[in-house]
Amino acid sequence: MAPVTAAGDEMYALVERLYPLCRSITGDGVRATLEIVGEYVPLRVHEVPTGTQVLDWTVPQEWNIRDAYIADATGRRVVDFAASSLHVLGYSVPVSATMPLAELRGHLHTLPEHPAWVPYRTSYYQPEWGFCLAQETLDALPDGEYEVCVDSTLADGHLTYAEHVVPGQVPDEVIVSCHVCHPSLANDNLAGIAVATFLARALAERTPYYTYRFVFAPGTIGAITWLARNAERIDRVKHGLVLACAGDPGRLTYKQSRRGDAEIDRVMRHVLAASERPHHVTEFTPYGYDERQFCSPGFDLGVGSLSRTPYAGYPEYHTSADNLDFVSPAAMADTLALCREAFAVLDRNRRYLNLSPYGEPQLGRRGLYDALGGRSDTKQAQMAMLWVLSLSDGEHGLLDVAERSGLPFDTVAAAADALHGAGLIKA
Amino acid sequence: MAPVTAAGDEMYALVERLYPLCRSITGDGVRATLEIVGEYVPLRVHEVPTGTQVLDWTVPQEWNIRDAYIADATGRRVVDFAASSLHVLGYSVPVSATMPLAELRGHLHTLPEHPAWVPYRTSYYQPEWGFCLAQETLDALPDGEYEVCVDSTLADGHLTYAEHVVPGQVPDEVIVSCHVCHPSLANDNLAGIAVATFLARALAERTPYYTYRFVFAPGTIGAITWLARNAERIDRVKHGLVLACAGDPGRLTYKQSRRGDAEIDRVMRHVLAASERPHHVTEFTPYGYDERQFCSPGFDLGVGSLSRTPYAGYPEYHTSADNLDFVSPAAMADTLALCREAFAVLDRNRRYLNLSPYGEPQLGRRGLYDALGGRSDTKQAQMAMLWVLSLSDGEHGLLDVAERSGLPFDTVAAAADALHGAGLIKA
Amino acid sequence: MAPVTAAGDEMYALVERLYPLCRSITGDGVRATLEIVGEYVPLRVHEVPTGTQVLDWTVPQEWNIRDAYIADATGRRVVDFAASSLHVLGYSVPVSATMPLAELRGHLHTLPEHPAWVPYRTSYYQPEWGFCLAQETLDALPDGEYEVCVDSTLADGHLTYAEHVVPGQVPDEVIVSCHVCHPSLANDNLAGIAVATFLARALAERTPYYTYRFVFAPGTIGAITWLARNAERIDRVKHGLVLACAGDPGRLTYKQSRRGDAEIDRVMRHVLAASERPHHVTEFTPYGYDERQFCSPGFDLGVGSLSRTPYAGYPEYHTSADNLDFVSPAAMADTLALCREAFAVLDRNRRYLNLSPYGEPQLGRRGLYDALGGRSDTKQAQMAMLWVLSLSDGEHGLLDVAERSGLPFDTVAAAADALHGAGLIKA
Repeated sequence: MAPVTAAGDEMYALVERLYPLCRSITGDGVRATLEIVGEYVPLRVHEVPTGTQVLDWTVPQEWNIRDAYIADATGRRVVDFAASSLHVLGYSVPVSATMPLAELRGHLHTLPEHPAWVPYRTSYYQPEWGFCLAQETLDALPDGEYEVCVDSTLADGHLTYAEHVVPGQVPDEVIVSCHVCHPSLANDNLAGIAVATFLARALAERTPYYTYRFVFAPGTIGAITWLARNAERIDRVKHGLVLACAGDPGRLTYKQSRRGDAEIDRVMRHVLAASERPHHVTEFTPYGYDERQFCSPGFDLGVGSLSRTPYAGYPEYHTSADNLDFVSPAAMADTLALCREAFAVLDRNRRYLNLSPYGEPQLGRRGLYDALGGRSDTKQAQMAMLWVLSLSDGEHGLLDVAERSGLPFDTVAAAADALHGAGLIKA
Repeated sequence: MAPVTAAGDEMYALVERLYPLCRSITGDGVRATLEIVGEYVPLRVHEVPTGTQVLDWTVPQEWNIRDAYIADATGRRVVDFAASSLHVLGYSVPVSATMPLAELRGHLHTLPEHPAWVPYRTSYYQPEWGFCLAQETLDALPDGEYEVCVDSTLADGHLTYAEHVVPGQVPDEVIVSCHVCHPSLANDNLAGIAVATFLARALAERTPYYTYRFVFAPGTIGAITWLARNAERIDRVKHGLVLACAGDPGRLTYKQSRRGDAEIDRVMRHVLAASERPHHVTEFTPYGYDERQFCSPGFDLGVGSLSRTPYAGYPEYHTSADNLDFVSPAAMADTLALCREAFAVLDRNRRYLNLSPYGEPQLGRRGLYDALGGRSDTKQAQMAMLWVLSLSDGEHGLLDVAERSGLPFDTVAAAADALHGAGLIKA
Repeated sequence: MAPVTAAGDEMYALVERLYPLCRSITGDGVRATLEIVGEYVPLRVHEVPTGTQVLDWTVPQEWNIRDAYIADATGRRVVDFAASSLHVLGYSVPVSATMPLAELRGHLHTLPEHPAWVPYRTSYYQPEWGFCLAQETLDALPDGEYEVCVDSTLADGHLTYAEHVVPGQVPDEVIVSCHVCHPSLANDNLAGIAVATFLARALAERTPYYTYRFVFAPGTIGAITWLARNAERIDRVKHGLVLACAGDPGRLTYKQSRRGDAEIDRVMRHVLAASERPHHVTEFTPYGYDERQFCSPGFDLGVGSLSRTPYAGYPEYHTSADNLDFVSPAAMADTLALCREAFAVLDRNRRYLNLSPYGEPQLGRRGLYDALGGRSDTKQAQMAMLWVLSLSDGEHGLLDVAERSGLPFDTVAAAADALHGAGLIKA
């Protein structure tokens, strides 16, 4: 396994680079993000025109923004998009006007319970303009006239998403998805983007069993667009994981797929339990990130979601406090390590068939068993072979063997390799 | 929902009217009872002739009684049917004789452990005469000759039962059954009769989904007679509830159907748990009230039983202490309220099919979803819509949605109505 | 049931007779053992020639031993096979040599953690010679030359096993198996042999429902040989039990079959729980005694294993401390009693079909039910009849009835007999 500390630092550096960009569900912020990610892993970028019908949705107009501010009577910018991409309501329509504070208030969003924080708000599908600011900034504004400016464009263009594929031994796919539409929020989801990127690099170190497809796409509409454009080949997707909120100091949280007993669910539960990390496994809910789309009842894919503190589960969520201080190299390295452990299990979780199922095969004459009998201790490797033989009936995979035997998955997989080498089981 | 306090008082008044009547499995006491109930809800009364073969049984001779007593040598009635219908052994054959106390004792039934109480005893299928009295009454009787008189008739006649139907939107039926064969016992089962009567009235306030059939019949032989006469149409009965012991001060008890996972079982468990009432849910046993017959393996209907303190679970059970003091308006009102809540769930527990199952449908453009994004709180109504969409796959009903989501059933049902109105799901 | 104390003493006497013999997986020690067992129950002895292919294995050469010792320079035997059959490595090849202690050490096996005990070791499939001795014996040996002698033969011959059959009412079989290959170890497995022998005698007291086949065979290769020679008729084996370690002071342990829900598993769990003995039920593992073979995935028979302290679960296991002091008449009698109780349930666990499944049949007119109604206590026998009627739907057996009703199995079986006698149910 790669030195995770180094990977942690590299991931953090990537988050730092991406942080200032103003991302949304369309526009140049997404493109700039994908360009940077593309320096780490080659990406195939897709541009889908405005107006394209995608499932029940339509690709919206493209939104781009150059500047936005509120200036007081002296011309001083009291709220400035240049200071943080959060200050403007996402998808704000352009505006240029002067109005009294009383009228302006209807367009201002604050967090009274956290007066120093700026909230993150959007209005994708209803034409609206607005600003997000700290409550204490608002409280300090004297009455009077203010100049407001949102220098944005909403025009026909494209929705942008990208894919990176790690080819495997079989065309069956594991999809790893992360949303790339949030502006300057570090945990949600620059950390997820960074972990996905470095996971792709790690998986390519040797050819995996499955083909791993990484999807970097805007939330909701991006996943829906990807699903719409891949409907014909969706049955290749055997497993999947949505990565989000991957860098905060909380314990790991795995949210199960809608099916609840999908193989990815069993693998994640097993690896989290075996790793002895503090963690939390939750039931599926139809709210959260893009598992909502992958697990919609028509698709019902075996796709779970991995985060640290989950969706909306921390006060900094969707505020300016989800910043570079909120995420750490160590937390991202830990998330990455868990992903690698999980995919190492998923990738080897084969079903074998015992070719000598009547009685035990004589392991001794194949050099797989101690010659000296009578001892009460038996080596774990031998126990693992007996377990693999016992359960290789076409109905159980190696994860079943590990769980039923209580033996480490690696020991079980090694036993299967030995038995396979001896011609006693077949895949 | 109707003002339950008023309903409680009305039910109690009905119990008071029915209390003095001497009911049995046949005879004029049952007819008089049904006549009074018929003042509250229209009844269709059935008379089934003696000798009619009903399943494995035969309708017995009709029993009627005018007078019964034990008189001492002075002619004083020391035990008198006029004081309580419990004093005579149910289905006692006529007798008119004088005999010493020693001989009489073989025909006397007491409760030594509750010396002031009169037990309730019957001998339906073995010709016998007898009296029930308080142990302390017996103890006070001096030796000597006593005159005994049971002025009863056992003759070919009829078994009487009645039905009341609340027509629904579909012919599928919910059966509500209560036994009407017990004499002056308030909880068992005048309270059950009263709750059934007022439940029928409440259900008729608006046309329910199911057709609700109320059966007022003698225990065992009455239910068997009803089943025998309705065998051809029994497959219309989708759900059912036997009401008994519905007015005592104990907590509510739901006894599950033999199937244990029938829809009525799930509804009752859900509503009892959601109501936060103290309650108890028990497994099916083939003993108790007429759920024994409805749940016999040939029928195996989804019929459970609701009581407060269950069958034989209180010392006053089948004694003179199960009197008007033992039941209360509040307890009956509570039982009625629970029934109404349960049937409100049962009646709306539809399965829907998501017509837009690939990805989430865009609720926003249908006015079903907040336009402003980014907030971490989501309205319960929106969550309920997402849950209904997620689980409307033809396999889950709204009760499944409520249980899996943890949302109130009413919220879920309202979400389904909204989605149905928007054409996003179909029944 | 037979007087278990007497049976305990008789079993202990059998163990004492068998204890000195040097058993192995082949050879005259097995034959002598079966000859003695044959004095208690008639045995059919099978001799299978060396070289016979049995499943994945081959019957090995036959091993016999006459003498073995280590003598010091004075000719004194410091380790002597005549003192205990454990002193020689099982299947030791012949040797006659003189060598210094340093060279001899490579052939000596001790238990440093129990310096006074002699371990039990074998080398069946790798040609080897060796001795087992107490660590303290070894420690006391001065350096110098030692004469070593193993007067054994390894030559083409036979593998020996035996069967005893208790004919039943049906050809379906219950197999009871115990291994006969261990030398002077009392609990493992002379106690198992003794309990099996007396269980066979007890079952023959009246014709059982099932045919009970007792197999006395060497461990692993013996069971594999039996399976290979009975492959054509293995589908007759409906249930089975491997008996081992049946006489130590520990609590009873039942190890479930690979299936885990086989009828023998349910019976053993029920009987152990109902007996209120301290006991332990464990999951199947593919290690232990011959359940390994019977439960291999190709056969997957409903065969569990009963011991007291289980396989390798006590320090005396496979050492000279598993001697006649370690087992007791009382413990063997208790194991025997449990087996009898279990087979009494297994043998009567029929499925019946209620011939009057619509409503309850009228038990009263068949003399099966109290005539006097209204009492709140109901006899257990009547409840058992109602339960048998309720669950006799072709899907539930009497054990299901006992478990669901909480009634004793004997009461349930008696109720079924009564109902069967009245023509209300059929097998």
